[in-house]
Amino acid sequence: MPNERRSGLGGRAAADARAPIGVFDSGVGGLTVLAALRERLPQERFLYLGDTARLPYGTKSPETVVRYALQAADVLVARGVKALVVACNTASSVALPAMAERFGPLPLMGVVEPGAAAAAAASRSGDIAVIATEATVRGGAYQRAIDRRRPGARIHALACQLFVALAEEGWTDGPIAQAVAERYLAPWFAPREASGAQAHTQAQAPSPAPGGPTPDTLVLGCTHFPMLRAPIRRVIGDQVALIDSAVTTAEATRTLLQERGVLAPLTAGAAEPRQLELLATDGVERFAAVGSRFIGRRIAPTEVELVDL
Amino acid sequence: MPNERRSGLGGRAAADARAPIGVFDSGVGGLTVLAALRERLPQERFLYLGDTARLPYGTKSPETVVRYALQAADVLVARGVKALVVACNTASSVALPAMAERFGPLPLMGVVEPGAAAAAAASRSGDIAVIATEATVRGGAYQRAIDRRRPGARIHALACQLFVALAEEGWTDGPIAQAVAERYLAPWFAPREASGAQAHTQAQAPSPAPGGPTPDTLVLGCTHFPMLRAPIRRVIGDQVALIDSAVTTAEATRTLLQERGVLAPLTAGAAEPRQLELLATDGVERFAAVGSRFIGRRIAPTEVELVDL
Repeated sequence: MPNERRSGLGGRAAADARAPIGVFDSGVGGLTVLAALRERLPQERFLYLGDTARLPYGTKSPETVVRYALQAADVLVARGVKALVVACNTASSVALPAMAERFGPLPLMGVVEPGAAAAAAASRSGDIAVIATEATVRGGAYQRAIDRRRPGARIHALACQLFVALAEEGWTDGPIAQAVAERYLAPWFAPREASGAQAHTQAQAPSPAPGGPTPDTLVLGCTHFPMLRAPIRRVIGDQVALIDSAVTTAEATRTLLQERGVLAPLTAGAAEPRQLELLATDGVERFAAVGSRFIGRRIAPTEVELVDL
Repeated sequence: MPNERRSGLGGRAAADARAPIGVFDSGVGGLTVLAALRERLPQERFLYLGDTARLPYGTKSPETVVRYALQAADVLVARGVKALVVACNTASSVALPAMAERFGPLPLMGVVEPGAAAAAAASRSGDIAVIATEATVRGGAYQRAIDRRRPGARIHALACQLFVALAEEGWTDGPIAQAVAERYLAPWFAPREASGAQAHTQAQAPSPAPGGPTPDTLVLGCTHFPMLRAPIRRVIGDQVALIDSAVTTAEATRTLLQERGVLAPLTAGAAEPRQLELLATDGVERFAAVGSRFIGRRIAPTEVELVDL
């Protein structure tokens, strides 16, 4: 990668506090991060890219994920973003070093480190549970990041694939979401006799041994999972710290932009450009339909620009 | 594509009744078709290829799916299969003409036509329901194939995404699978007062108007769905014809091989080669774990050969 490009684009983009923040994910999951960012940074403009043509990233090799992430970031940087938020667990796990090298001084934030830091800080007992997709659990990025900050922590990781499908279907609360949350999480968090879901056939057992310590912290290690916060909270009770990596990433991004002095000015003019632009690499109708649920307002398919990577 | 290859490979493979049958899918779903084939053709050898590195096909462009399908078929044909079963709805919808052109006389079977034919024949009323993935429903291949055979049929299609996740998780029966089946299908099939699942928030309404005719035939238009046959049957009752496209495809394949005179001889020698070989393009551990549930016997990861397409 040519050096002039790196410093040229990175330097130019980072200099303009009025430029949008680029947010990138393999699909719609990162929209929970975008929603958290918009809530905490209402004066900012955002450019979101969902690489829906090539999802899921979790099953691809690290080399392929790095290549895809750089391509997606190139699109955002070429449109003049002042910062990059990688709202994808897989890309956050493997592509940040290559992105930092390519885009130099451009502020860069992933979703794994902020969540891991918050979990390491929140846990009193050191028993920390992480729920994520199968690929994220297998990749071990959260486990390593938490362990680095809190050596000796007992980290229990569980893949909760159904949560992804429930979030995309919009079945984020109600009896089915509740039953799925109980089935996954009751073995960790609920009194044994209260968890009828465990009697189910072929139950997938979370890692702590029955009767082992109950985690005092639960990390939502998939960007889809904040959609299921309500049923998850009901299972874990109100004594467990619930780390929403969308929220922690948004807060870490605000801090980073502040440190770099590139927060957008708070006084927005009347002729402000559009605050949010959405890009997808395929399936704009589905992106709009599912995305509407993730972002909490209707997205029209015509609002989503189809881009080719 | 060179002509000598086409007739050379196709002709050679088709000539040997003892050669294996090649079965191809984007992932593990086609293993339900493989299981149905093995049940109906116990004397046959099978070579299964799951293109797990590039799933899902449903979100990709038709051109890309055709290219992937030809690459996968090339691998199977190079290993000397005598027939090709495309156990993937997306590839069956778009890639069969290109495959027929490339592989010439090689017997070729997809999953859409046999299911559509069975549904058109089974329905008395002409009200036929199809459940499938979002991509298959949107693509409309079942709708077109049924309509071609039974013009004027009222075809109601519904995407049931959660069924895929439930099948892959192995939660194929029990209270959660039952609740999901009810939520999707009760608006079509159950008396209104019996379907509490409809009270759920943001219910996705199937296409027939409330009070419209109840379909007398239901097509399982996704290879994952036969895994959920039991809860689905409980919702639809025993008066509705349930068309399992894995079963109909296996039966159509048997008929095709018979017509072409390439059924394997029924007397199997003691020194018979392995009856089943499994290939995957990525994630052999997950393929083995999920595949074990689909095929009803334990698959060891070492049984799955990793191939590069």
